Amino acid sequence: MTAVDRASSPFEVPVVDSPPDAQPVGWPHRHLLDTDVLTWPEIELVMRTTDAMREVLQRPIAKVPALRGRSVTLLFYEASTRTRVSFEVAAKNLSADVVNIAVAASSVAKGESLVDTVRTVEALGTELLVIRHATSGAAYLAADVFSGSVLNGGDGWHAHPTQALLDLYTMRSRLPRGSVEGRKVVILGDVLHSRVARSNIWTLTAAGADLWLCGPPTLLRGFEAWAGRGAAGRRFHVTASVEEALRDADVVMALRIQRERMASGLLPSMREYAARYGLTRARLALAQPGALVMHPGPMNEGVEIAPDVAAGVQSLITDQVTNGVAVRMAVLYLLAGLAPSRGGE
Amino acid sequence: MTAVDRASSPFEVPVVDSPPDAQPVGWPHRHLLDTDVLTWPEIELVMRTTDAMREVLQRPIAKVPALRGRSVTLLFYEASTRTRVSFEVAAKNLSADVVNIAVAASSVAKGESLVDTVRTVEALGTELLVIRHATSGAAYLAADVFSGSVLNGGDGWHAHPTQALLDLYTMRSRLPRGSVEGRKVVILGDVLHSRVARSNIWTLTAAGADLWLCGPPTLLRGFEAWAGRGAAGRRFHVTASVEEALRDADVVMALRIQRERMASGLLPSMREYAARYGLTRARLALAQPGALVMHPGPMNEGVEIAPDVAAGVQSLITDQVTNGVAVRMAVLYLLAGLAPSRGGE
Amino acid sequence: MTAVDRASSPFEVPVVDSPPDAQPVGWPHRHLLDTDVLTWPEIELVMRTTDAMREVLQRPIAKVPALRGRSVTLLFYEASTRTRVSFEVAAKNLSADVVNIAVAASSVAKGESLVDTVRTVEALGTELLVIRHATSGAAYLAADVFSGSVLNGGDGWHAHPTQALLDLYTMRSRLPRGSVEGRKVVILGDVLHSRVARSNIWTLTAAGADLWLCGPPTLLRGFEAWAGRGAAGRRFHVTASVEEALRDADVVMALRIQRERMASGLLPSMREYAARYGLTRARLALAQPGALVMHPGPMNEGVEIAPDVAAGVQSLITDQVTNGVAVRMAVLYLLAGLAPSRGGE
Repeated sequence: MTAVDRASSPFEVPVVDSPPDAQPVGWPHRHLLDTDVLTWPEIELVMRTTDAMREVLQRPIAKVPALRGRSVTLLFYEASTRTRVSFEVAAKNLSADVVNIAVAASSVAKGESLVDTVRTVEALGTELLVIRHATSGAAYLAADVFSGSVLNGGDGWHAHPTQALLDLYTMRSRLPRGSVEGRKVVILGDVLHSRVARSNIWTLTAAGADLWLCGPPTLLRGFEAWAGRGAAGRRFHVTASVEEALRDADVVMALRIQRERMASGLLPSMREYAARYGLTRARLALAQPGALVMHPGPMNEGVEIAPDVAAGVQSLITDQVTNGVAVRMAVLYLLAGLAPSRGGE
Repeated sequence: MTAVDRASSPFEVPVVDSPPDAQPVGWPHRHLLDTDVLTWPEIELVMRTTDAMREVLQRPIAKVPALRGRSVTLLFYEASTRTRVSFEVAAKNLSADVVNIAVAASSVAKGESLVDTVRTVEALGTELLVIRHATSGAAYLAADVFSGSVLNGGDGWHAHPTQALLDLYTMRSRLPRGSVEGRKVVILGDVLHSRVARSNIWTLTAAGADLWLCGPPTLLRGFEAWAGRGAAGRRFHVTASVEEALRDADVVMALRIQRERMASGLLPSMREYAARYGLTRARLALAQPGALVMHPGPMNEGVEIAPDVAAGVQSLITDQVTNGVAVRMAVLYLLAGLAPSRGGE
Repeated sequence: MTAVDRASSPFEVPVVDSPPDAQPVGWPHRHLLDTDVLTWPEIELVMRTTDAMREVLQRPIAKVPALRGRSVTLLFYEASTRTRVSFEVAAKNLSADVVNIAVAASSVAKGESLVDTVRTVEALGTELLVIRHATSGAAYLAADVFSGSVLNGGDGWHAHPTQALLDLYTMRSRLPRGSVEGRKVVILGDVLHSRVARSNIWTLTAAGADLWLCGPPTLLRGFEAWAGRGAAGRRFHVTASVEEALRDADVVMALRIQRERMASGLLPSMREYAARYGLTRARLALAQPGALVMHPGPMNEGVEIAPDVAAGVQSLITDQVTNGVAVRMAVLYLLAGLAPSRGGE
């Protein structure tokens, strides 16, 4: 994001103050379930819309009436304060009415099906549904029965599209010329169980990054084969060597290690993981000077990332959180704009 | 609800955009604790007000300023996503500020009394209190100490007045001439433990329906005697024969079977219940062609209702949810209108 | 609060309808962590601002746009419906957007640190953070890393500044000449574990009250020494004799006995505590006729306070709740006014 980009955008001024139907064409999707279906121009549209939303966030009253009188429901089957609040703030910044529904795992067992819950939420008057669920594919099932727009807020190991978009936005905002093209980007950690990694693969390869996935071999299973199959422009590298991955990297994104994975036998102890794959200052020194450090949060400091690295000048972790609000405003805005025509996906 | 009704109503236009004090006289109740005290003209006033609220729900911005700056507190001692969200959306559509208070059963044990909690909620500035509680009569106790309006969102087995009103509204919206008078309406299932059934008895008999309660004999206990005692216009039928009940029915409402009731010995197994009383396509064939199918939700599909019946063309289950928002807007609106005079009940 | 006070205040009219920057100088604090740092003129500024907020609460639409478009986050690590709702209503009355984050003790264990959570909340766009935490000092830690304003909603045994301010406001509203100067004020109960008592010590001594702390000796530990050390104007009395404390008292504030303290061995049984220190009608007769009765809530009726005393004509418990909303509006307003200059503390 440069001053020139923004000044030359004819899109920026109208995007936030005009009614949704004044929005330029170019966003054909009714839902946002993953980043795999996004073309590069569509990703760039999200980025430009996010620029406009960042500008809104800097106003004294960080609020626009774009979704006034419209209801956004946050249906969370997994606890997630961070992502839930980010969507809640984003929706409120657009003046939407927000309904929070937290479904405990226990009540799923005895309760109604996901499909019935989604139908009920729709009948209650919501057009925009953000769903998080521990089962991969849950957001797709929701989209099958919901007549409004579904935004995947994380489904199992599968996808977390707004995280990938905010990660890309954050990199572009700090890399020279606002581009990740040709930049060496490393995703480090428990790739196997990471929806963040999967969604980032689509956006980062679309952006032309030199993408590397790195972690213990047990946590990279299947990705070698995927990397090999990739069509031109969707290729990436897979390595268990943290030195090979970090050498001359421009961006290093450490993934959260879920403590509950330890029981699976796929991971060494936390201590051993930290010793062999933790992002320490010493390891970061292998990367380019000033390489960007990222983490989707919440962090296990001292495990996948050292506290001094997380808090260091190269860290963009706080930027990721702020950009997360702006990206989610942008995506809600784009999805809402489609509602009248109900075409697309 | 017919086009003629709505076009001829001088009430519809002012109801949603004018201040509450412009509301026509005719609603004398400060609280809504059950449907038993509602006269037929009062029920019709709720129906007409709901028509106006349905019209609001169809606007692009489904919001009116009727309760702007007023606080509605949802005090739920029982978990209920569906009813809680319905009231929350209804109150927000009227521009109220909504406060959610979920009181876990565990904290009731060690915590303050219901009376103290209600007094505190009042002192915090709420005029409209929606309360759900596992104990029959809790809403009445709340109303005794609360100086604003109490809306019973379900108290034990006793009453659930907005559910009965939305059920009546939903039937009227689909029956010829918008009337249930003389129609055979069947409530099927665990009548004994159902506040939904109890509140529906009052509205449906007031509406002149030919009302039938049907279920296993253990779950109809006491209703035979009640049916026999009923004054003219409050009579209904009780039978354990699902064939007798369903034959030529115009409306069939299946009740949720609470799994936790199984331990009581009053119910056979879920499987046996489904076999003998579940609303299947074969049983529904006994009713009038096109008979309406209803369920208060959440459903145990395959137990009290077969999935193909729940999802079939005769099912109004989704309509019930949408009408629930409109009915609750109407009731909140009517109760709020009384607040200045503080007369009544 | 007298009519004369209010009519003569040039401050009252602008305070609620003008933008924050029109606010008069005099409030130098960026955070409100405890009452110990407040000078008497600053406390009086809170009192006058609360007068203005009380006036807002009496309007038909109890809402002013002071914080429109600004986000207030309520970060509660301890369950507290009463305090949480009071802050929520206060913030909404000022037209703020409110984000509720309830962090269960269990998720603290495995989750991110308080510091990371606070940084995340800031990055999400909040300028005003209300925090409650079971650990004394948590709000100070939060203030160290948060670039906006932190409002301590209770930290361990340490401080609960808005409670002390609302207590003072409530006393002044009912005492002759609106002053507690020279009045005998008794805080009765588990002083040792009470953040309410600690914060009240600062405000009541600043106000010139004749302050007495009373309770079982085990629950007064350390306060004798503190009382002895107090500089002029910060002195108070400590006694285990309930008769000595209550004799001729003008105000009696009973503290909540936490049932979980019983295990500590510091307290006799609940029954014994009630018999020896409970605020009964007989004991209250020792105080001045018409002495004011207060309690921070929630009450254990029949333990630290008898039901007939709690509900009696001398009880200001409901006033405390209502004034709590007004005081919190005032404090949020004063803290928000500082945001642009970011000077102070």
